[in-house]
Amino acid sequence: MMTYDERLEHLLATAANIFAAHGFHSTTMRDLSRATGMSLAGMYYYVEGKDELLFLIQERCFTEVLTGARAAIAAETDPLERLRRFIRHHVGFFTAHMAEMKVLSHEAESLSGERWETVNRLKRTYVDLLLSVLDSARPEADSSIDARVAAFALFGMMNWIYTWYDTEGPVPPDRLADQLAELFMLGLVPSTVPAAQQG
Amino acid sequence: MMTYDERLEHLLATAANIFAAHGFHSTTMRDLSRATGMSLAGMYYYVEGKDELLFLIQERCFTEVLTGARAAIAAETDPLERLRRFIRHHVGFFTAHMAEMKVLSHEAESLSGERWETVNRLKRTYVDLLLSVLDSARPEADSSIDARVAAFALFGMMNWIYTWYDTEGPVPPDRLADQLAELFMLGLVPSTVPAAQQG
Repeated sequence: MMTYDERLEHLLATAANIFAAHGFHSTTMRDLSRATGMSLAGMYYYVEGKDELLFLIQERCFTEVLTGARAAIAAETDPLERLRRFIRHHVGFFTAHMAEMKVLSHEAESLSGERWETVNRLKRTYVDLLLSVLDSARPEADSSIDARVAAFALFGMMNWIYTWYDTEGPVPPDRLADQLAELFMLGLVPSTVPAAQQG
Repeated sequence: MMTYDERLEHLLATAANIFAAHGFHSTTMRDLSRATGMSLAGMYYYVEGKDELLFLIQERCFTEVLTGARAAIAAETDPLERLRRFIRHHVGFFTAHMAEMKVLSHEAESLSGERWETVNRLKRTYVDLLLSVLDSARPEADSSIDARVAAFALFGMMNWIYTWYDTEGPVPPDRLADQLAELFMLGLVPSTVPAAQQG
């Protein structure tokens, strides 16, 4: 017998997969009933409907990735190592939650009202956490790159993986995380001088 | 009077905006008729239906970005400058086509059969072009970063802009392109030695 929490987890994980595969708007509670093996009445015992399911998926994901990121960098004081840990944690979390990642990316605007506000507040807090980590990690004089451009370039690098990355492919998640951290921090051609200084 | 081509352009640009705002599956030909000011019969004179519209948006975008990228790097022989030009062109094209960019990202799987094949062939050709540009731009001995990881990290950095970037905001498209090129090529902290070599 599954507990209440386990059944809710099962419902949310299955819904994330179905939303990721077919889109939120094309999915009905009946589709979810078939996919979860739960009756419609059984599902309505856990959630009011599809909107609440989408909200719970997004709210739990952002809460978990935010809590995890704070824990990952908490004991570290070196600014570059804090950035590396933030990246490793984000990539580790989302390579383990690819369906949720696609749902967060594609269905951000499918929520509205208070639910949208709640998720957006969590998202902003997470962005702010990265901005503060980046701020400490950058050379003080280096303002050639806008802070928000740097932050969203990094999120783009990391979040885009749901479109191409295969966790069973030649690059395991750990190595992917290390390579993205290296790319973002040191660049593709770290030893090269800027083109402006060349011949 | 608009010509045939101008009316088709108008139809495609409007459809891209509507698909980007409401999703392909939620949009009907009737919605598109309202948005374009064209009659249903008028639209069916140009396309067979919604699927062909989505196909034409994707096919034209990839053809245009591929042709433009080839032209942008054609006269340049310096490998780093070729990479910089590829990045500038991609960012320039997509900051001018944000709706299309979202449609390419969200509705890649909404096509099927031969149409999907055609778009996918263009997409693969474009990825291969970037892989060859990257291959020449990287230090020869540097194989610490997988070629596909580097290519899709860059695409992620650039394509994610449709989720956050405002062309009317504080960073104009030209500067965004330069900053993303600098970040990708030199990294956030270019002057810093790799952590592995630190104390």
